[in-house]
Amino acid sequence: MTKEVVGEGGSFTAKDYHDPPPAPLIDAAELGQWSFYRALIAEFIATLLFLYITVLTVIGYKSQVDPNKPGVVDPCAGVGILGIAWAFGGMIFVLVYCTAGISGGHINPAVTFGLFLARKVSLIRAVMYMVAQCLGAICGVGLVKAFQKSYYTRYGGGANSLNDGYSTGTGLGAEIIGTFVLVYTVFSATDPKRNARDSHIPVLAPLPIGFAVFMVHLATIPITGTGINPARSFGAAVIFNEEKPWDDHWIFWVGPFIGAALAAFFHQFILRAGAVKALGSFRSSASAV
Amino acid sequence: MTKEVVGEGGSFTAKDYHDPPPAPLIDAAELGQWSFYRALIAEFIATLLFLYITVLTVIGYKSQVDPNKPGVVDPCAGVGILGIAWAFGGMIFVLVYCTAGISGGHINPAVTFGLFLARKVSLIRAVMYMVAQCLGAICGVGLVKAFQKSYYTRYGGGANSLNDGYSTGTGLGAEIIGTFVLVYTVFSATDPKRNARDSHIPVLAPLPIGFAVFMVHLATIPITGTGINPARSFGAAVIFNEEKPWDDHWIFWVGPFIGAALAAFFHQFILRAGAVKALGSFRSSASAV
Amino acid sequence: MTKEVVGEGGSFTAKDYHDPPPAPLIDAAELGQWSFYRALIAEFIATLLFLYITVLTVIGYKSQVDPNKPGVVDPCAGVGILGIAWAFGGMIFVLVYCTAGISGGHINPAVTFGLFLARKVSLIRAVMYMVAQCLGAICGVGLVKAFQKSYYTRYGGGANSLNDGYSTGTGLGAEIIGTFVLVYTVFSATDPKRNARDSHIPVLAPLPIGFAVFMVHLATIPITGTGINPARSFGAAVIFNEEKPWDDHWIFWVGPFIGAALAAFFHQFILRAGAVKALGSFRSSASAV
Amino acid sequence: MTKEVVGEGGSFTAKDYHDPPPAPLIDAAELGQWSFYRALIAEFIATLLFLYITVLTVIGYKSQVDPNKPGVVDPCAGVGILGIAWAFGGMIFVLVYCTAGISGGHINPAVTFGLFLARKVSLIRAVMYMVAQCLGAICGVGLVKAFQKSYYTRYGGGANSLNDGYSTGTGLGAEIIGTFVLVYTVFSATDPKRNARDSHIPVLAPLPIGFAVFMVHLATIPITGTGINPARSFGAAVIFNEEKPWDDHWIFWVGPFIGAALAAFFHQFILRAGAVKALGSFRSSASAV
Repeated sequence: MTKEVVGEGGSFTAKDYHDPPPAPLIDAAELGQWSFYRALIAEFIATLLFLYITVLTVIGYKSQVDPNKPGVVDPCAGVGILGIAWAFGGMIFVLVYCTAGISGGHINPAVTFGLFLARKVSLIRAVMYMVAQCLGAICGVGLVKAFQKSYYTRYGGGANSLNDGYSTGTGLGAEIIGTFVLVYTVFSATDPKRNARDSHIPVLAPLPIGFAVFMVHLATIPITGTGINPARSFGAAVIFNEEKPWDDHWIFWVGPFIGAALAAFFHQFILRAGAVKALGSFRSSASAV
Repeated sequence: MTKEVVGEGGSFTAKDYHDPPPAPLIDAAELGQWSFYRALIAEFIATLLFLYITVLTVIGYKSQVDPNKPGVVDPCAGVGILGIAWAFGGMIFVLVYCTAGISGGHINPAVTFGLFLARKVSLIRAVMYMVAQCLGAICGVGLVKAFQKSYYTRYGGGANSLNDGYSTGTGLGAEIIGTFVLVYTVFSATDPKRNARDSHIPVLAPLPIGFAVFMVHLATIPITGTGINPARSFGAAVIFNEEKPWDDHWIFWVGPFIGAALAAFFHQFILRAGAVKALGSFRSSASAV
Repeated sequence: MTKEVVGEGGSFTAKDYHDPPPAPLIDAAELGQWSFYRALIAEFIATLLFLYITVLTVIGYKSQVDPNKPGVVDPCAGVGILGIAWAFGGMIFVLVYCTAGISGGHINPAVTFGLFLARKVSLIRAVMYMVAQCLGAICGVGLVKAFQKSYYTRYGGGANSLNDGYSTGTGLGAEIIGTFVLVYTVFSATDPKRNARDSHIPVLAPLPIGFAVFMVHLATIPITGTGINPARSFGAAVIFNEEKPWDDHWIFWVGPFIGAALAAFFHQFILRAGAVKALGSFRSSASAV
Repeated sequence: MTKEVVGEGGSFTAKDYHDPPPAPLIDAAELGQWSFYRALIAEFIATLLFLYITVLTVIGYKSQVDPNKPGVVDPCAGVGILGIAWAFGGMIFVLVYCTAGISGGHINPAVTFGLFLARKVSLIRAVMYMVAQCLGAICGVGLVKAFQKSYYTRYGGGANSLNDGYSTGTGLGAEIIGTFVLVYTVFSATDPKRNARDSHIPVLAPLPIGFAVFMVHLATIPITGTGINPARSFGAAVIFNEEKPWDDHWIFWVGPFIGAALAAFFHQFILRAGAVKALGSFRSSASAV
């Protein structure tokens, strides 16, 4: 769309897109803007709705197929793991679509962390987003528990933990690769280079992001219940508050953060530029802070 | 797309989009236009088709998995709750797509109510849309009953009511939050600010709206059968006409209207502008009527 | 996109779109063009692939859940009715996407009939398309039978007929309304008025068309197996060639053609223009032939 | 978008699009470019993630419904064949979306072969892509085996082979037609003619490509487990390494390559141009090498 040719330092004279300058680590100015607080509210509400809908789907599914519950006659009545995977993926599609213009549509500390590493958001914004996401997740799961306390506790509260028969290493690996798939898709969808060059190919970015979440859930629900979103795991752990999910809880922070870091590295250093060029530009932007 | 810079009262001199002026409460001129009646017909037909397809799916599902029905050998043969959720979400996607250019594609009194609160439609249009939607819903469910009277009555007629084990408060809460998700998505998808600023990101608006309906059904079918659309609940209650759905029927008007009002408030006052600015513009436009 | 202002007869001086002139009933010139025969080949291949994939899915599903077949241990193993509905809707999405630029992407005599009534295609093109579609359907189902003859015959050959417990009127009604939903979506998706006015809203037309097919299958598979496409029903009837599908076969031509005619009428006379204006323009274009 | 009128040899003076010149068979220059190696890395990683997610879904599904596994109480708990088909189709959607701008998003030797036949990629690029895809597939399946060795071996390792009751000819035919559907969609989605002429209709190309994969899996999982991607079959065969998949393995190379060749022929010679014109242009471009 933009025809402007930008020569940064004389070396890329034919670029048809702007790389936005890297976000500063600390940007005091943004603390004085309403749009910053609006973004925090949007992240809070979006994560709340995400956890509310998805955990309600998980609990409802388990209650429908419980052979011990009176009145359950059809073991196939529930939405199944396929329905649960749709709930997670579909909500991310809807909520990223709704909040993209307000907050960037992270709804996930791992996404925020990856975008921070790529210098797309400032440190202060990254930290505040994560706080808003975790609070939203706690409130969302809290609503589910408030609505149906007995079912909530009986059916595991939607909390993430390692399933029987899987080692810690497998769970950690599943979280790392799963988050890699998600954050790699986020980077691909929001690449300014893509928007400029491929402007004849429309980019409905939230849809592939939602599908990435859907796919990872199909694959890893049997292993860990699928985290790939530390706020989701944290909110469920806080409200469910039993020993097993807390014991395994570190996996759902360490795994996603490693996966997000790998995806940020892969996109920024391998895909976006030759390794040397990228290294150079990273160093110069870092020293500019 | 539009490059025009609009200075309203000198305060927002760099806006790159038009906010359409708020709709008047009563707009006599629109009653003389064919396009107004055409919009009513489109809402009527769309709500009719919505209820016809979705209630037929619900009845067909229950007949397929009924162990007392002769010839039923496969309890998993039906489309399942996942299929029912797809029917509701998918039809909203298709019908919003088809009617968006004619009537705005509401197909739901709660959506109409939310858009009225945000002053996007006039009072007279809002009321007439709701009448058209309720009539369409009655005819749609009526068609299903006419087609298969015995199955229709035996399998609950697609009517909404509280399921066993859930309190009135839970049902009301589920309807409020579910409608919030839907109407919030509608506001996000039709925001003129979005279209102006993000014009490089294509916005296939009906798809996330349909997905929002799909998601809410996955989560709340076990609780209330999922209303979030008073016309849908009203049409099914009128044709099924038994005591239980009528007793609970107020929930499916009060809940969705509260949810829609919250979503309108959230979008207009929190996301679109600072609270003060928004309050000011609301007051001045109200006094302009 | 186009800025041209067209004044037809001086009455619509501000139209921002072209209505293409109505297609002539018989257009001898098109018989001399390679693009005409290319379109026939595209319709033939697309209908062949449509029937091949969908009937294979139906047969495969029934073989997987047959309790009498040795080795079947999991009655839930099959794709289910939901999977079958996806197969029909998803293939229409893919094939309309692929052939839209070549033949218009009909793949269905009822769609061709509706577009003929709206004067979008000539009579000769409409007839030849239907022939190509029916031949393609026969070949597609023939391939499935050739691949797995015993399963094909044992599991009903994907042929459409009235299921037990439904009257002829119900089946006919289901086909009429189902085809109405599909053809109404086709008209909405290809409306030149829409493309001109809403050009800021991207229109991925094949997706809602595919979803319309998906939705109708969810609702009416229990009643008739869902035709809404005479070529699909004809191809399956020819290859399966048993009495019951042939007895009911007229339903799957009469129903879809009535539904398509109603949709064409609804779109052209109600939605596109005031009834009087539309009548006038129809008459004048008809007399122009 | 482009208004340029290109007269090639004076015969097509009104073309509104550029056909890119056919790729040379061997392009030494591309070996010196970082973008070539970056594309290989992107294909490697994408195929790795594709196999990792999809085979994990297959193994997880089989472990969930195994009646011999302790703790399995719900035979319907798994994602089903529908979920498996979604995993394959959805991952292709996500990964084609992510890598389209880097490598063209093949992720499949059959797609690379089809595009090579149509002279869209050079011979050296085609061969190197296939090597990268096969290595990625081996690593992806290897990860699944490393994560859960006992389940992996017990549940068949996601390897492709002919199922009982189907002849070699049927399997080969299923692979040929399935790959035809996929590669035909790829050609339709990336046709430069389409982008120029239909620029008012947005083309979210990866979505129909993903859906084509989804559809073919619904139809042919019961026959061969569905290959239509030689890298996918090769990676699973190498890691699973048992006799039956190796015996049938040739089907999953010969079938997809024949299908891709047919699709390339159909698109280039039938759909894109009159057979004579196409033959002429093919010959002249071939002689230009």
